[in-house]
Amino acid sequence: MKLAVIGVGLIGGSFALALKQAKAVSHVVGVGRNAANLKVARERGIIDSTAPDPASAARGVDLVLVATPVAQFPAVFASLADSSATITDGGSTKRDVIAAARKALGKRIAQFVPAHPIAGAEKSGAAAANAELFRDRRVVLTPLPENKKITVSTVEKLWSACGARVSRMDPEEHDAVLATVSHLPHVLAYALVHGVARRNNADQLFSFAAGGFRDFTRIASSHPEMWRDICVANRDRLLQELKSYANDLGSIRKLIQKGDGAGLEKLFAAARDARNKWIQSS
Amino acid sequence: MKLAVIGVGLIGGSFALALKQAKAVSHVVGVGRNAANLKVARERGIIDSTAPDPASAARGVDLVLVATPVAQFPAVFASLADSSATITDGGSTKRDVIAAARKALGKRIAQFVPAHPIAGAEKSGAAAANAELFRDRRVVLTPLPENKKITVSTVEKLWSACGARVSRMDPEEHDAVLATVSHLPHVLAYALVHGVARRNNADQLFSFAAGGFRDFTRIASSHPEMWRDICVANRDRLLQELKSYANDLGSIRKLIQKGDGAGLEKLFAAARDARNKWIQSS
Repeated sequence: MKLAVIGVGLIGGSFALALKQAKAVSHVVGVGRNAANLKVARERGIIDSTAPDPASAARGVDLVLVATPVAQFPAVFASLADSSATITDGGSTKRDVIAAARKALGKRIAQFVPAHPIAGAEKSGAAAANAELFRDRRVVLTPLPENKKITVSTVEKLWSACGARVSRMDPEEHDAVLATVSHLPHVLAYALVHGVARRNNADQLFSFAAGGFRDFTRIASSHPEMWRDICVANRDRLLQELKSYANDLGSIRKLIQKGDGAGLEKLFAAARDARNKWIQSS
Repeated sequence: MKLAVIGVGLIGGSFALALKQAKAVSHVVGVGRNAANLKVARERGIIDSTAPDPASAARGVDLVLVATPVAQFPAVFASLADSSATITDGGSTKRDVIAAARKALGKRIAQFVPAHPIAGAEKSGAAAANAELFRDRRVVLTPLPENKKITVSTVEKLWSACGARVSRMDPEEHDAVLATVSHLPHVLAYALVHGVARRNNADQLFSFAAGGFRDFTRIASSHPEMWRDICVANRDRLLQELKSYANDLGSIRKLIQKGDGAGLEKLFAAARDARNKWIQSS
């Protein structure tokens, strides 16, 4: 099986490495904007050849993975409109990706099985790719009514071959769930670090920040362009989440204002218990 | 040297273990509300004896560490009013601790050197204590005008013997700095987890939460009573920080509302760069 990876970054590169390790692909062709990154991908054996654009890369391959930042998806899909390959993607949002695919692929939309590997890292690029990135991580497929069963199961098997736990979801539901547990926390972490960095005494503040701050803000080291695109693509859901979070935070602020220790302790204990239950079960 | 530890939890227990390891103390007497926890502390060799209250524990010891949740400090200090031992503490806030000490200790206030070891963990209790907890971590002393130099330097040496990097700060400044880099992030993490846990689809949401959510919310597994006390004690500063954070978050919300991708990318990149610079230098 031959694979084309459009965007040989953390996700695209790890997908290629995992499928090579599983002996599910024999040849990988890579496309990317950054020549230095593609060179790293060649040197690391992630890709075996390069192509100048998605259309050339897709010629003669069985599967195409689109793994660029999501703002580039419309152009990539347009370039794939004549391809007969099965297509999947690594986009963190699904409604916008599906809309772009429908517009660009037309009748060929049945070849596209949308996917979201929930396996980020604060590192990016081919240098950060690894064959184990998806091991025991979730991958959500949001199949389309047009997809044939065999196409969906082919894509499902490939993500499973990467070691992922694959599940299916409606695209609307996917974007709502991810807004809560992923997109919102990223925005909250970026806001905190940006707010601290702008202070006059930023150096002092950072110098007294400890392990709690480090872990809380880890996701603020994520890829700015990728998160820009996610925020724009999932705007309506994310704004709802920000509103809901502002309410939650407002409730705590009121307890602090009143000096309501019992109320604060109850809320903190409920949060701790919920988190510990989740950690133990995951 | 003999040491009394009032509150043999993560901080108190680790202080005792570190000083024993450094051969700086020969005997540790422990006081606590929880008999089962004190039993663990005896079994683990953290303490060598127990006392029913701080007053009895302080009799004949050279140093007392007060390491209970800060709401208990006034009663503990009152119980230490007749002691001639040097006193230090592990409280995460300093203005309220100093006010309580002044009120309870009267003329003996000169014996008290306030300290804040910036070395938490989401675990608590004697079972979580370890001799290396303070290694290379910061401990902030906020000495009082009444302290003799020799008293401050004795306390400084003991925290240094635990492996800590000790520095000195004004109590006002301490509470402001910690509100930004520690108290605020804890409240933000508790708010997120509590908000998610209250949803009808909380189980689904948690099941799609990944590593970013786990690290972001790690501090929401912290000790609810301890954080209740910190929020109440440092209320004014924390409310300022919540206001400032709401502004920072509001700026991002506006960029998202406008779909201002360039503005979002710029802000996210500035945050990422600031965090990475900090991580590399720390």
